[in-house]
Amino acid sequence: MQKLTIVKVGGAVVENAESLQTLIDHFTAIKGPKILVHGGGKLATKIGGKLGIESKYVNGRRVTDEETLEVVTMVYGGLVNKQVVAKLQSAGCNACGFSGADANIIKAHKRIVKDVDYGFAGDIDEINTEILKGFLNLNIVPVLAPLTHNKEGLMLNTNADTIASEIAIALSSLFDVRLTFCFDKPGVLSDADDDTSVISEINKKSYEHYKNQGVISGGMIPKLDNAFTAIGKGVKEILLTNTEGVEVGNGTLIKG
Amino acid sequence: MQKLTIVKVGGAVVENAESLQTLIDHFTAIKGPKILVHGGGKLATKIGGKLGIESKYVNGRRVTDEETLEVVTMVYGGLVNKQVVAKLQSAGCNACGFSGADANIIKAHKRIVKDVDYGFAGDIDEINTEILKGFLNLNIVPVLAPLTHNKEGLMLNTNADTIASEIAIALSSLFDVRLTFCFDKPGVLSDADDDTSVISEINKKSYEHYKNQGVISGGMIPKLDNAFTAIGKGVKEILLTNTEGVEVGNGTLIKG
Repeated sequence: MQKLTIVKVGGAVVENAESLQTLIDHFTAIKGPKILVHGGGKLATKIGGKLGIESKYVNGRRVTDEETLEVVTMVYGGLVNKQVVAKLQSAGCNACGFSGADANIIKAHKRIVKDVDYGFAGDIDEINTEILKGFLNLNIVPVLAPLTHNKEGLMLNTNADTIASEIAIALSSLFDVRLTFCFDKPGVLSDADDDTSVISEINKKSYEHYKNQGVISGGMIPKLDNAFTAIGKGVKEILLTNTEGVEVGNGTLIKG
Repeated sequence: MQKLTIVKVGGAVVENAESLQTLIDHFTAIKGPKILVHGGGKLATKIGGKLGIESKYVNGRRVTDEETLEVVTMVYGGLVNKQVVAKLQSAGCNACGFSGADANIIKAHKRIVKDVDYGFAGDIDEINTEILKGFLNLNIVPVLAPLTHNKEGLMLNTNADTIASEIAIALSSLFDVRLTFCFDKPGVLSDADDDTSVISEINKKSYEHYKNQGVISGGMIPKLDNAFTAIGKGVKEILLTNTEGVEVGNGTLIKG
């Protein structure tokens, strides 16, 4: 099958002009069909604050009330998405920005309230693989904002990591997918204070070992759990790296 | 040649929930390939105001400074565009939102300063007909925000009427294009105070006659001048109507 690279990048990277440029350069250099999924980050909080809308979080997750939904739709779907697209276009990458509502790429439903009401947070129902394949056939590079819709007229706020994983899983039936999570470290480190201590490859067995020994802990655990889930659902390779590693593939590799 | 309908709708229509719903219903009912171009309207001014950014106008045209460019990119490209797309999707229309930067649909340049510096206003250089054809072949209904880019990383603010006309002209080589300008009147009126006095058809000769008699005056003149320019450049039909007339084609018709 043809290879497809899906890169997920956090809001912090795309909001900073310097790190954004590094990402643009390395992402543009990736050969073959590719997709970029970007997070939102603090700009929505900042602009929301100026508009007098207070950001609310429960368990580290944003609670999306109606006003916040408008802000994230503007900031993620408009400002951030179009600035990334315009910069990629200038670098010669045929980027095209989308939210999950556009061409019904990602249908979701408003998260069902259990213990916590996350408001207009969207849990994904379905990825439109057919249309994504159509866009890739037009030699377009989809750039996805962390927004979905319920196909009943409502936009929804959805985590970018989840969008990237779900798209990677869905497109695994059509492509050999490499899913790259681009974050602030050059990979999974065996020593959190030493950026040269990148663990080059992790499998299910060594992951258990690293966890038991306390080498991998904290925020890396949900990241890697998600990665192994995606691998279990057909994604060929997962790479954890920083903006510099996106093209050459340095970082921590997980193979299916 | 195959027929293509391009509808331009002002910001005022899409910002009002009721008129937007009327537009959605009638636009969705249009058969065959179609494109929607929406204006921005007062929401950018309102949100810009809340953010402490004052809107400046010269000769009735918005002056786009750097802060205003960010606001219009957010509001037109994010909030308005995605809300229109989500509502069209819920009505069963396979809408997909774009700015001119996306897939390089509209390349423009920053307006050259003569008497007035309009700031980050974009004058159109080129319409990417190939990619628009590609989208239509995927059975997508493009929904365009009034934003372009210079392919050097800069977003630009471009008038929606101009975008609609230029796209209509460019696609005339591939389609029999009907360009519909949707505004607040049911058509060009022979009596401005009587909405039933719609002039059903205007040609170059009768237009001169109406102008000389003062029947057509004011803001209708630049609208109609633009319409005749587009007809002169290959657009098959131009319709001036309101949201209700979009589907059935009531209103004032100009034929090529």
